[in-house]
Amino acid sequence: MTVSKAYADLERRGRIVRRHGLGCFVSPAKDGNREDEEFGTGNGGRTGDWKRDAGSNYGNNGEGERGQSRIPGRNTGQDKTGTRKRFGWQEDFEDYLPRAQLWRNFDYSEAEYSFHLAAIHSGLLPLKEIGEAMTMLVAKRPELMSAYGNFQGDLELREVMTKHLRTRGISLSAASLMITSGTQQGIDLVARTFIGPGDAVYLEEPSYTGAIDVFAGRGAEMISVPMDEDGMRIDLLTKLCDRRPPKLIYTVPTFQNPSGATMSMERRQRLLELARSYRCLIVEDDPFSDLYFHSPPPPSIKSMDRDGHVVYMKSFSKVLAPGCRMACVAAEGDILERLTAAKAASDLGGPLLIQLAVLPFISDRYDAYMKGLRSALRSRMERAAKLLKRHAPQGVKWRLPEGGLNLWLELPHSVHVGELYRRASRLGISFLTGNVCHVGEPSTNYIRLCYAQMEEEQMERGLLLLMPLLKESMTGTKR
Amino acid sequence: MTVSKAYADLERRGRIVRRHGLGCFVSPAKDGNREDEEFGTGNGGRTGDWKRDAGSNYGNNGEGERGQSRIPGRNTGQDKTGTRKRFGWQEDFEDYLPRAQLWRNFDYSEAEYSFHLAAIHSGLLPLKEIGEAMTMLVAKRPELMSAYGNFQGDLELREVMTKHLRTRGISLSAASLMITSGTQQGIDLVARTFIGPGDAVYLEEPSYTGAIDVFAGRGAEMISVPMDEDGMRIDLLTKLCDRRPPKLIYTVPTFQNPSGATMSMERRQRLLELARSYRCLIVEDDPFSDLYFHSPPPPSIKSMDRDGHVVYMKSFSKVLAPGCRMACVAAEGDILERLTAAKAASDLGGPLLIQLAVLPFISDRYDAYMKGLRSALRSRMERAAKLLKRHAPQGVKWRLPEGGLNLWLELPHSVHVGELYRRASRLGISFLTGNVCHVGEPSTNYIRLCYAQMEEEQMERGLLLLMPLLKESMTGTKR
Repeated sequence: MTVSKAYADLERRGRIVRRHGLGCFVSPAKDGNREDEEFGTGNGGRTGDWKRDAGSNYGNNGEGERGQSRIPGRNTGQDKTGTRKRFGWQEDFEDYLPRAQLWRNFDYSEAEYSFHLAAIHSGLLPLKEIGEAMTMLVAKRPELMSAYGNFQGDLELREVMTKHLRTRGISLSAASLMITSGTQQGIDLVARTFIGPGDAVYLEEPSYTGAIDVFAGRGAEMISVPMDEDGMRIDLLTKLCDRRPPKLIYTVPTFQNPSGATMSMERRQRLLELARSYRCLIVEDDPFSDLYFHSPPPPSIKSMDRDGHVVYMKSFSKVLAPGCRMACVAAEGDILERLTAAKAASDLGGPLLIQLAVLPFISDRYDAYMKGLRSALRSRMERAAKLLKRHAPQGVKWRLPEGGLNLWLELPHSVHVGELYRRASRLGISFLTGNVCHVGEPSTNYIRLCYAQMEEEQMERGLLLLMPLLKESMTGTKR
Repeated sequence: MTVSKAYADLERRGRIVRRHGLGCFVSPAKDGNREDEEFGTGNGGRTGDWKRDAGSNYGNNGEGERGQSRIPGRNTGQDKTGTRKRFGWQEDFEDYLPRAQLWRNFDYSEAEYSFHLAAIHSGLLPLKEIGEAMTMLVAKRPELMSAYGNFQGDLELREVMTKHLRTRGISLSAASLMITSGTQQGIDLVARTFIGPGDAVYLEEPSYTGAIDVFAGRGAEMISVPMDEDGMRIDLLTKLCDRRPPKLIYTVPTFQNPSGATMSMERRQRLLELARSYRCLIVEDDPFSDLYFHSPPPPSIKSMDRDGHVVYMKSFSKVLAPGCRMACVAAEGDILERLTAAKAASDLGGPLLIQLAVLPFISDRYDAYMKGLRSALRSRMERAAKLLKRHAPQGVKWRLPEGGLNLWLELPHSVHVGELYRRASRLGISFLTGNVCHVGEPSTNYIRLCYAQMEEEQMERGLLLLMPLLKESMTGTKR
């Protein structure tokens, strides 16, 4: 308290400047024009400083941006200098949000050439069918709009979902399933229920930004495990766990996001054994397993789970209608019960109408649709890969994905990814910079491109625009 | 760790029994039939033991139930004795869910006579109009089903909502609003962002169960403030804050849930002054202010807030279509930005289609509809009150509410509320027992009846069935 007051006093006297999420700096000028200058660099994504003294740190993009505005491209409609004084107390108001890359990088406004989301273009989705089901429900069962749903999700929909889980080798009854508002909510529910300050969470490196954010928000100690083409390096994981036993291991074993790698069957088994011996939880996030290009991927880890160690998550809305926010979480025993209690406290359950609107499609037409979707996505991926092969400058590397929605590009070290991102933005091209897929947000030389977010021709035009940029940025000075 | 291992060892040897959420007990028998006996009482809702050794405690109903199943009336489809061993490790798997009354008491399955939810019967709701809007959107803009929405919520809907906030004296632009999946999510986002272990949260006594659960889940130190007919006793709050400065004050100042009391204008001002002097946050939860029976309630606390201390929450779905899960949160400065980051991590934003489906009604027909709804609810409340006056046994007390959906009944101390609840259940009557509206879940002699959840005649029949039960339970032995 004394230190805090001393800082406040120094600030009042104009001797120091406090910058939200950054820290304190000696004032460069006493004449009151501190607003115009920028100091320091971000420390986005640092772990170990969960509860922050001066509000949260929303991070920066880790690519050398200095002192950038905390809300790039967003106009809050408030005059910053005017409100700074009135809301000044808020800067000292402690929070538990140490990192929020998702919020900053998930751009819902479509760029002209959108490669940044792992999403499927609406032209490929069965929106007509789902819309018709919704229209019918609204006419025949309007009371669905007034009913609070079962916290666990509609029973009939859960029953239908169990059939699809069986294709992943998972034989569970509807009682072991919960419906969530997308997988994001599923990850969040697990984290809020089981992860607290200092708990050890292991994840692949690189991993899904939204998961990193959620675990960081719970104050977890996140430990990254390197990958190779067979997925997470279980040998290294084992060594790491020797030193620091895991509370939870988060993995996307199939067509991993962002790298695209698939964990081998042998590693899946070893991972499960490890979880059993440490009596810890595995979150198996499985958004892409239906989207294979050649042969079906290995069975899910959950399919081998006898003792309820695996919380399995499968998104349905991602491949049907992302705006419908519909995923299922499968878990057994106490674990699911506790997650259901957390779901109740979060939002009292999701909209029932939407659950029932996707039900008939998932029940009757999902498999046939998925067959068509797979071949459409494969053709896109191949066209993207062909263009890359022809036009990508030398030194750019990638592996052809076996499924999923993304290409994970390794760029030569001479490329400054942040600078490339800015130049691309000016041409209306968006992609995900690799740094946000890492816990510490180090500088990386990777970018993720989704080849499914746009119409095919648009995607190709975007790649043809991006490649020359990439070449230019390689001639820049080495960092 | 050592203690934990010692307990595990004792359990393995059959000397003690660990019961999930209850604790450890000396084993009554070594012959393995421990499953058949029940031990101890619940310690539901205790604060101060946030991080639990042996999993979570889902509480009990505080009315003398002993060793009841943790999931009353719910069949998980798993054979308990069979799965107990396989999933045994889960019992030791630590969580952060010390209390989950909401999950236990929020019964989405309609009882024949449902008085337990603060909800409006579907016959009074504009489901047809909202359904028509949805049908039109599905036909004309199917891509809405595929689009991820803005995390903060659709801009146009937020603009429409600002108009309604002005009727509560709140002049804010759409930039200061966020759309949430019901107010429950709003409370949850505030808690996860700003409340952590040991932070002091003040709330009215009694208060909303769902809020108590959420703050308990964050490990808050919850401090209850007594009320009178002018709402929270600010004089007592002030004294309490002297000893323990508040991080956050949660209040439902208008037609409070569950008591129905409305905070006086003077207290609203004093509360705001207190928040200013402690640089803390007020959550003003305002579900009912449109549902006044005589004259409009005093202006919201938010309307007097100059420095961004108040996070104001207004539910739209509660009065329009509860299943649509649609509320708005108004906050200023950094506070809203941080809440938006938390919303992103929770669920990537709510379904856009539903946001746009309620938009035209909120824009054009809300005020006229609300006028009719108020008079319908007032007539129901009066009919319920008339029946109570005629048939309630002597010693039962209540105040006529000035607005909202609930009657808060004080029963004579001779009534065992838990027993009354069980007898009523057998007749298909549901209500909320007062104990879940308290932090420590003490035995209380209050129950909450919602007069709006059923059709009017059904509500009356339910009351006529409940009153004799009440009378009978008064002749029972005193606790």
